[in-house]
Amino acid sequence: MANKEIPYKIYLNESEMPKYWYNLRADMKNKPAPLLNPGTGKPMTAEELGGVFCEDLVKQELDNDTREYPVPQEILDFYKMYRPSPLVRAYCLEKKLNTPAKIYYKFEGNNTSGSHKLNSAIAQAYYAKKQGLKGVTTETGAGQWGTALSMACAYFDLDCKVFMVKVSYEQKPFRREVMRVYGADVTPSPSMTTQIGQKILAEHPGTTGSLGCAISEAVEVAVGTEGYRYVLGSVLNQVLLHQSVIGVETKIAMDKYGIKPDVIIGCAGGGSNLGGLIAPFMGEKLRGEADYRIVAVEPASCPSLTRGVYAYDFADTGMVCPLAKMYTLGSDFIPAPNHAGGLRYHGMSPILSQLYDDGMMEAVSVPQTRVFDAAETFARTEGILPAPESSHAICAAIDEAIKCKETGEEKTILFGLTGTGYFDLVAYQKYHDGQMDDYVPTDEELKQFRARLPKV
Amino acid sequence: MANKEIPYKIYLNESEMPKYWYNLRADMKNKPAPLLNPGTGKPMTAEELGGVFCEDLVKQELDNDTREYPVPQEILDFYKMYRPSPLVRAYCLEKKLNTPAKIYYKFEGNNTSGSHKLNSAIAQAYYAKKQGLKGVTTETGAGQWGTALSMACAYFDLDCKVFMVKVSYEQKPFRREVMRVYGADVTPSPSMTTQIGQKILAEHPGTTGSLGCAISEAVEVAVGTEGYRYVLGSVLNQVLLHQSVIGVETKIAMDKYGIKPDVIIGCAGGGSNLGGLIAPFMGEKLRGEADYRIVAVEPASCPSLTRGVYAYDFADTGMVCPLAKMYTLGSDFIPAPNHAGGLRYHGMSPILSQLYDDGMMEAVSVPQTRVFDAAETFARTEGILPAPESSHAICAAIDEAIKCKETGEEKTILFGLTGTGYFDLVAYQKYHDGQMDDYVPTDEELKQFRARLPKV
Repeated sequence: MANKEIPYKIYLNESEMPKYWYNLRADMKNKPAPLLNPGTGKPMTAEELGGVFCEDLVKQELDNDTREYPVPQEILDFYKMYRPSPLVRAYCLEKKLNTPAKIYYKFEGNNTSGSHKLNSAIAQAYYAKKQGLKGVTTETGAGQWGTALSMACAYFDLDCKVFMVKVSYEQKPFRREVMRVYGADVTPSPSMTTQIGQKILAEHPGTTGSLGCAISEAVEVAVGTEGYRYVLGSVLNQVLLHQSVIGVETKIAMDKYGIKPDVIIGCAGGGSNLGGLIAPFMGEKLRGEADYRIVAVEPASCPSLTRGVYAYDFADTGMVCPLAKMYTLGSDFIPAPNHAGGLRYHGMSPILSQLYDDGMMEAVSVPQTRVFDAAETFARTEGILPAPESSHAICAAIDEAIKCKETGEEKTILFGLTGTGYFDLVAYQKYHDGQMDDYVPTDEELKQFRARLPKV
Repeated sequence: MANKEIPYKIYLNESEMPKYWYNLRADMKNKPAPLLNPGTGKPMTAEELGGVFCEDLVKQELDNDTREYPVPQEILDFYKMYRPSPLVRAYCLEKKLNTPAKIYYKFEGNNTSGSHKLNSAIAQAYYAKKQGLKGVTTETGAGQWGTALSMACAYFDLDCKVFMVKVSYEQKPFRREVMRVYGADVTPSPSMTTQIGQKILAEHPGTTGSLGCAISEAVEVAVGTEGYRYVLGSVLNQVLLHQSVIGVETKIAMDKYGIKPDVIIGCAGGGSNLGGLIAPFMGEKLRGEADYRIVAVEPASCPSLTRGVYAYDFADTGMVCPLAKMYTLGSDFIPAPNHAGGLRYHGMSPILSQLYDDGMMEAVSVPQTRVFDAAETFARTEGILPAPESSHAICAAIDEAIKCKETGEEKTILFGLTGTGYFDLVAYQKYHDGQMDDYVPTDEELKQFRARLPKV
């Protein structure tokens, strides 16, 4: 052990656990652009948003000023069931790489949802319950968000209707089964239970569905059913607010032992994990109190930050949701098959998009086979089987550590290990069997999608 | 929170973690009966056992006297990667049951093997490496032990050959894939790579294999290959020794907060988890220093303690292994289909068998559907999706807690939550779809198997 005083894994005591979420927007000079009503082109009002989302969550969504939100006691009680998550020093990985770098990772996978998604799911379920609602609707692709929301709804005795992209529903029966354990009602999307589903099925009879279509169905049911609202697991400001618990906990643990990261790395799909992990560090950077390199890692097959444009776009392919200003590839962009379902989103959180546009963070993209090389190295040295999404961050962290080996720099690298890969073994199988695709879209392809962006 | 001073989850600090394994045999007045050579009927010597097992493990197997074994530093370093495991107060389950009982569980599932099996796998791999071996062989049924051993071998850079029961190999491709991530060589059993496999396939061309057959193949390869030995994940004395880390950690945590369990409950297949969990508590009981009720829980479909006999029997169906004196249903007993693969063993650890015969512990059996009722209640209240094996202990703990509700007693119940059910979702699916079997063998059936026990 390099430093005897720092434990291998840092678990905060319960008394040290954060009691507030940190709202990064309070420290941003350039605030994220507002959501627009696609009909009027004007900013969505609280009233308009309240028809779709829970009241308190709408307030959080629109609040660019309040710096710290006290976490309600009911949510703190639930957090105690699976938090604090450990901050781990990757001694074995460092040794394997023979690097002078110090590598830390914050591991969010030690709960049944298998990822950080539970941090926001329990918050959204709490506010739905507080409002006296009967239930919530949502969509899920890979299934992590749907699982997390099912767990949260079981805890608060709320009805949970999940529209699961049909291809996932059929290929991932185990994810579906976990949601059933928690009492959720899981429907393959598109379905005949909604008007939009019926329309899509009439137009495309054999379709296996898409996240955009599932969003549209979930929103339709929420808006049309008494006592229901729609909830979402990423992209939105409120989600990044809840996920700040990751970063705040990390920072408390690092401060306790006098550790300061030089580089902070996270995978980025819609931005929920990255936005949460970096929040308090980015806050210091925005206030000029400290400096950090902050790196978003995305799949080369779906490179919204590295090859997208910063523009208003639809959040869903069905074009029923508000317009968000974000780095986007176009709402009808369909990435080539890759196995990080959580990173297959065409856009990016408006908060992170603004910070990236302001030069406050970097972004890199990595091809899939390299991601799985990194995943396997990590599994064999650190013992944890990582999710494909998380493995993007591992890959970039390994690249940084190897650079340190070349330069001799003893940098401190922090990355977010968002989840486990227990439900992603088909992907590992393809990797082992040499059947993994590394397709990257051409400039010409990206240009075509870009040409169809809405005119605002 | 009932007691503000006791945290929701107790994690020991690294400095508090146990540095030794506790050898329960040192305190047993009636020692477990020795393993016998099936050819001569005489106790197996260290030399005979050394042809199959690693040197240091043979010493541990035969050592009825040493009370505390210092855990080698290399193993302590590995333990730090996933231990200490949390001791959790099941507040939400207590509330759901409306019981005055205090329920605690020791959760061993927060590692990629998904169970407590890693505690012994890393020890056995360490001693194999220390002896300068090239690799080890083993068998696996449900796959938890095979996964744990693969992880341990990857860590020490040892070759790992796993014979996986063919029906599991085909039905659980994901378990197999995890082992491949860790570089293990996984062969469906019976196979054409061994003489015994060829013989079995010639006699039963369409067989889907059995644990007994896989053991025979693994032993044949270990004995016949230079630099290899065979390792086993349960039943043996050495395994219970390593697994005592569960109980010792639990006891340190409970002593720290002045908690004393009245009842200690664990599921029992071969006995690795139960023997580990109860070790230091049973030690106090044997020395007359304290009293505890200790309860083994087994499936009604495979009731070795509750309906078996205490006799010498073969450990495997191939009858190549030494004879062990244990509670057994007969080595050719095949339990009705049930989904707790880890509890489908015909016998029971010789140590636990002796203690049970001496009246030092109780045993109950539970039908499968009730086990899954308990599993789902637990998942929805405590958040963790439990393994079917572990759910046997949950079921018995809930029964105890409900008794406390009836009598008003504020008993403290401790149970072992051995692992997670992420790879057991086919079982949950059958449960949800009402297709779960609760077959229990008849007395007549058990009598037939009993009649075929070896004459010693």
